[in-house]
Amino acid sequence: MIVELISVGTELLLGNIVNTNTQFLAEQCALLGLSMYHQVTVGDNRERLSEAIRTALGRSDVVILTGGLGPTEDDLTKETCAEVMGFAITEDPHTKERIKEYFKNSIFKVIPDNNWKQAMVPEGAVVLDNDNGTAPGLILEKEGKAAILLPGPPGELYPMFKKQVFPYLAKRQPEILRSQMVKICGVGESQVEDKLLDLIDRQTNPTIATYAKTGEVHLRITARAKSEEEAKKLIKPAVKEIKNRFGDNVYSVREEETLEMAVVRLLQKYELTVTTAESCTGGLLAGRLVNVPGASEVFREGFITYSNKAKRKYLDVSKSTLKKYGAVSSETAREMAIGGVFAADCDVCVAVTGIAGPDGGTEDKPVGLVYIATYMKEKVTVKKFRFKGNREKVREQAVVRALDLLRRSILEQYK
Amino acid sequence: MIVELISVGTELLLGNIVNTNTQFLAEQCALLGLSMYHQVTVGDNRERLSEAIRTALGRSDVVILTGGLGPTEDDLTKETCAEVMGFAITEDPHTKERIKEYFKNSIFKVIPDNNWKQAMVPEGAVVLDNDNGTAPGLILEKEGKAAILLPGPPGELYPMFKKQVFPYLAKRQPEILRSQMVKICGVGESQVEDKLLDLIDRQTNPTIATYAKTGEVHLRITARAKSEEEAKKLIKPAVKEIKNRFGDNVYSVREEETLEMAVVRLLQKYELTVTTAESCTGGLLAGRLVNVPGASEVFREGFITYSNKAKRKYLDVSKSTLKKYGAVSSETAREMAIGGVFAADCDVCVAVTGIAGPDGGTEDKPVGLVYIATYMKEKVTVKKFRFKGNREKVREQAVVRALDLLRRSILEQYK
Repeated sequence: MIVELISVGTELLLGNIVNTNTQFLAEQCALLGLSMYHQVTVGDNRERLSEAIRTALGRSDVVILTGGLGPTEDDLTKETCAEVMGFAITEDPHTKERIKEYFKNSIFKVIPDNNWKQAMVPEGAVVLDNDNGTAPGLILEKEGKAAILLPGPPGELYPMFKKQVFPYLAKRQPEILRSQMVKICGVGESQVEDKLLDLIDRQTNPTIATYAKTGEVHLRITARAKSEEEAKKLIKPAVKEIKNRFGDNVYSVREEETLEMAVVRLLQKYELTVTTAESCTGGLLAGRLVNVPGASEVFREGFITYSNKAKRKYLDVSKSTLKKYGAVSSETAREMAIGGVFAADCDVCVAVTGIAGPDGGTEDKPVGLVYIATYMKEKVTVKKFRFKGNREKVREQAVVRALDLLRRSILEQYK
Repeated sequence: MIVELISVGTELLLGNIVNTNTQFLAEQCALLGLSMYHQVTVGDNRERLSEAIRTALGRSDVVILTGGLGPTEDDLTKETCAEVMGFAITEDPHTKERIKEYFKNSIFKVIPDNNWKQAMVPEGAVVLDNDNGTAPGLILEKEGKAAILLPGPPGELYPMFKKQVFPYLAKRQPEILRSQMVKICGVGESQVEDKLLDLIDRQTNPTIATYAKTGEVHLRITARAKSEEEAKKLIKPAVKEIKNRFGDNVYSVREEETLEMAVVRLLQKYELTVTTAESCTGGLLAGRLVNVPGASEVFREGFITYSNKAKRKYLDVSKSTLKKYGAVSSETAREMAIGGVFAADCDVCVAVTGIAGPDGGTEDKPVGLVYIATYMKEKVTVKKFRFKGNREKVREQAVVRALDLLRRSILEQYK
């Protein structure tokens, strides 16, 4: 089955935003075993959009359109697609109700008139409820072909695709494709590939694909088979072999489990409470932990001690340590971690102090230098890192490595 | 002049990488005042690539192709483009010399045979030297149209474009395009458009485009003109009119300035220090403030008080308030903000408490209910919000609204 993507939006043609939706959708379609030969971007222009839809329906079985479903006059993906495929447009009472509901709890007193436009749908289309916005998704089927219209904002598109479109496409695709994730932290991408070269070279079924994330590498092992059971049989030995090769660097084999989820799961397993002591990351580390629903079970309070004074006041870092070694030092990180455990009266603390830049770097202590420490059960672990990239990138990497060090410290204790 | 982009690469169709080249090239072309109506991605496939080039040359003046210039058999952009446009291929002694030179300083002892393929160029093509790799760029001109072939790796593409292609295109394009941002917070996208409908309807030059971000709307006013000065004259009154209509909702007119930067700028202007008291956002709000280089001038410490106990311990929220009204209440938010100012001994505190979900919601206090409070100069401001979406979305919106309330509270004081 051939699928084609059409992104609609003048902001893409102007280069205002990077088209991450296309990457997401392409990855998902590859996962489903669908063939993709074309990705096209056009602006909010009726004529050119019509042309793109017509061309796509001529050469592909399924066309996924993103963007242009908003409430404004610019947005004309739905209208244009319906016109090209010969669908009349009619009001959908269910969607109208949902829009009312959506606005009921919003800051708006009155629903803006143009939002009602979003309740109009092509007759006979499958309506995909939008849990994160007012524009519903739509599936239009005709003569064995399908057009799938999805909202552009990733926060609306991703959950809608995963929950509603993925199962729809899976049903249309006869062979099944199953995959299993192996998530690795603390090893670089090329190092991972080096260690897997023999497996990657001889791969046919299952295949192994690597995806580099900030501070992480995700491996997807994918098998094509006639049944669920057969696919599982193909995947299992490959996953086992990879786990053998990477040991504790593997933090999860669950598709949906993020690094912070794996960490919270470990804390829950051993009934530990954690606190955070952050300087350069300024709350982002705690923010990641709190991403996890139910984090309150293991996390109750965190410290953002950006200034030296705050490090002393809340974490009891000694004046002489700060003076002798500086705020960005192994010694300060160590004292922050110890101080955090006592101040918050909990089991573990992870502390981060570093130079995120662009200013503040010296020859001895350059931008990107970050110390991360953990303290638990009277054991301190401190690691020194030299991260590359801008302020944002340095802080992002520091957060990932702090979560990873926390994870490893717990594993170490309960070995 | 119309320009079209063709990205070549199977890795894009599989979703292995995000197409950042297209965003870069689109932005550069917009800057040059070129019109772009299509962006296309195809794989390393001769037939489909030929078709894409033919279509592009039919409807555009300039076609920029990226990728597929490497030394392997898969790479066929140059050969295919030459064939479509009717160019013979011949060896370029200059490029051959450069490849020799390039390998002289590399880790390879012997030049891989297939690299000589990169010295073959279409007869009469303009050769663009590659300072960061072996594949030269190429410009093929015929019958008033041009195809520009560039290497895919961003580290080769970006410098080659800026140094050699930008000046080439600028020469072909007589008009310039200038734009100005107006960034708005606290008003929804459709509300913004409602208020600008008359301006948007009668727009020709300058044009107004709206972009919705989480909790924000960005407006780009773009003018086409013969000179920098003329463009400015067209943009100025439009910006003034928009500022009049939206007043304090406009937080910046600077392209690069984020909401947190605008807030830090305000704090610096009035020499105020700030602290944060966070429950459901768990550090993300402070994390956003610390995004800003130099935030240490205004931000020294922040509180992550996820549990009730922590709210009492650090922020002195009273036991009876927590008991009577609950942690998610106007009263608790108020006491958190006041407590924060005293605990951190600073000028302003912004406090957030809410229910991010997915659990913890009740009929009275549903998921998405968030209270945000500020306290400065003995004045408390509390706002109640009902955010939509999943845990991540609720927290993201809460952060944006907290930054915005902080901004408004300062403006209010110094009116």
